[in-house]
Amino acid sequence: MKIGILGGGQLARMIIEECNKFAFEFYVLSNEKNSPAGQITKFETEGDWNDENILKEFAGKCDIITLENEFIDYKKLEAIEQTGKKVFPCPENIMLIQDKYIQKKTLHASGIPVAEFTPVNEVSDITEFSKMNGYPLILKSRTMGYDGKGNITLNSESEIEKAFRELRERGELMCEKFVNFDKEIATQVVRNTSGEIKVYPVVETIQKNHICELVISSSQFKKDITDRVNEIAVRIVSDLKYTGVMGIEMFLRGKEILVNELAPRVHNSGHYTIEGSYTSQFENHIRAVLDLPLGNTEKVSENCVMINLLGKRDGESKIRRTGKVLSTQNTYLHIYGKKLTRTGRKMGHITVIDKDLNKAINNAYSSANELEF
Amino acid sequence: MKIGILGGGQLARMIIEECNKFAFEFYVLSNEKNSPAGQITKFETEGDWNDENILKEFAGKCDIITLENEFIDYKKLEAIEQTGKKVFPCPENIMLIQDKYIQKKTLHASGIPVAEFTPVNEVSDITEFSKMNGYPLILKSRTMGYDGKGNITLNSESEIEKAFRELRERGELMCEKFVNFDKEIATQVVRNTSGEIKVYPVVETIQKNHICELVISSSQFKKDITDRVNEIAVRIVSDLKYTGVMGIEMFLRGKEILVNELAPRVHNSGHYTIEGSYTSQFENHIRAVLDLPLGNTEKVSENCVMINLLGKRDGESKIRRTGKVLSTQNTYLHIYGKKLTRTGRKMGHITVIDKDLNKAINNAYSSANELEF
Repeated sequence: MKIGILGGGQLARMIIEECNKFAFEFYVLSNEKNSPAGQITKFETEGDWNDENILKEFAGKCDIITLENEFIDYKKLEAIEQTGKKVFPCPENIMLIQDKYIQKKTLHASGIPVAEFTPVNEVSDITEFSKMNGYPLILKSRTMGYDGKGNITLNSESEIEKAFRELRERGELMCEKFVNFDKEIATQVVRNTSGEIKVYPVVETIQKNHICELVISSSQFKKDITDRVNEIAVRIVSDLKYTGVMGIEMFLRGKEILVNELAPRVHNSGHYTIEGSYTSQFENHIRAVLDLPLGNTEKVSENCVMINLLGKRDGESKIRRTGKVLSTQNTYLHIYGKKLTRTGRKMGHITVIDKDLNKAINNAYSSANELEF
Repeated sequence: MKIGILGGGQLARMIIEECNKFAFEFYVLSNEKNSPAGQITKFETEGDWNDENILKEFAGKCDIITLENEFIDYKKLEAIEQTGKKVFPCPENIMLIQDKYIQKKTLHASGIPVAEFTPVNEVSDITEFSKMNGYPLILKSRTMGYDGKGNITLNSESEIEKAFRELRERGELMCEKFVNFDKEIATQVVRNTSGEIKVYPVVETIQKNHICELVISSSQFKKDITDRVNEIAVRIVSDLKYTGVMGIEMFLRGKEILVNELAPRVHNSGHYTIEGSYTSQFENHIRAVLDLPLGNTEKVSENCVMINLLGKRDGESKIRRTGKVLSTQNTYLHIYGKKLTRTGRKMGHITVIDKDLNKAINNAYSSANELEF
């Protein structure tokens, strides 16, 4: 089975790492040579995934196509399907999700709770929205935003004009009511083509500078919350007839859950599942895409913490001082193989399993601080 | 870090699978193109590892060399070392182990219990040995034997001549007293260059037609046995100043333990450690070779069973009917990517973890029987 992945970053890399035991052949289309994923397969194609000819030629080598990022024009994915090759998640789902306004509209129409939102074509759309919903509000690029890029929080009318001009250059806009949440939470849900669905446990995510720093899988959430998250996750992938793993970011405010964002791919909030679950999100994504039975998404231990290793400088990456992490029990190091580091760039992660949650969190931070990379 | 592996079979493949998370670069020297390990790295060299020029050229690309089989002439490994590249396990250890007579002599000299043995140059050496030790006895090739190949059991004097002529063609011979064992047991021990040593739990191995069929990790062995196995394992690698994982096959007869054979590499009896231990033998082998701290070798669950998927016919391999295995909880499938199957060829394995040992064993057999490959 020749599986093509559009994108060669750490998500594609971990899909391959986790599925090599099944002896599939992984083909990677990446915009850089020796990408994190391309390093660990024989079949890396360097090329622009928005070039339809390159995409079609790449797809021609594969039996089936999946993707590790949602920034590929869905029309190009449809063009692949016209050559007779299946793409999962399907182009229609990618279209719905990659435009955050259409995404929210679709969720809202399905009865999924989301913050108030509106499309923005001109400055007056924002002022109108603010009259109904007050400040703060968030002005967002409808497409291509990630890790806080493409988002600006507005606290008063005087900030609108500048923010509008700045983000407008990135493309179409929308705005949303700011949610004064208690916690940010997330889950991963997986559905195979036959309709089997499994949901991973809900986790808490801690962001710093709009980038996920820590993911905490614990038993902190009561049954009413976990049931509600499950219900939302199942409803979303059922209604979309979605195939693959989807990451769902949510806000928790009291007992209320609002869906913030969907990611049509394996997700940073689920990296802990490699050691923390019986079957990782990466393996289950490929099982889903190939319509194989899904693996057990339950957790292997009550507490599991994942910390991102974010670049602290710009330049060549060189990992050092791994000794402490490697000699700490139940502490697992993952390095993505990126040759260049950049401030805030995701270079790897550490997962810690411990019966004592505070110990796990402390261990995650001290291990990450000890490393040089 | 560029790590070279001599050999491209499933052992090299699983080393790479288990260590990709550290973003090392793996170079594979294999006598076939698209070998199981070569399929999952960009850096596969097709070539004969007994050709000194090919070996040296290959080593030139790597920072450090290890191996997945003991059938490489140790003198060729010394030639690599003369180019300034380290080889682990070191050529001297490989020399001691690859000649089974020298291996036994070394073990005996270290005070490790082994069955009576003698070198065989002519037929009369066997008759002399039989007078002292009786029948049955085993005539063995001193080198290049595996999975029963190169071994003949002799039950009477009349069988000596024919067996001697047959095995003599393979090279030098030795003979050993047949051990009427209760169980065959094994362990894996790992030592890094700095001298840190860890031992995996002792397992029972069930052979069929001289090939390992089942490996059972359970709590069946009392403390006196596990202590003794640990002591033997630590003694062997300490005395040899060995680097890497070593597989140790032993006979258990009452309370007596006799060492049967050493393997200077990761070992089939330790495949279960991927899911059954906190750190797999494959990861610990590379940690040892790079002189990193060793990972936890304790088991994650009381019972773990591994069954080899052995080819049942000759021809092209095509895996089918994986649904049952993939949908059975705590049952893990591994396929090695061999294009051709052969009767008795190791094509993959299944690991099962279960609180109930009998259930685990039954599940292993029924899962293996269900698969077509």
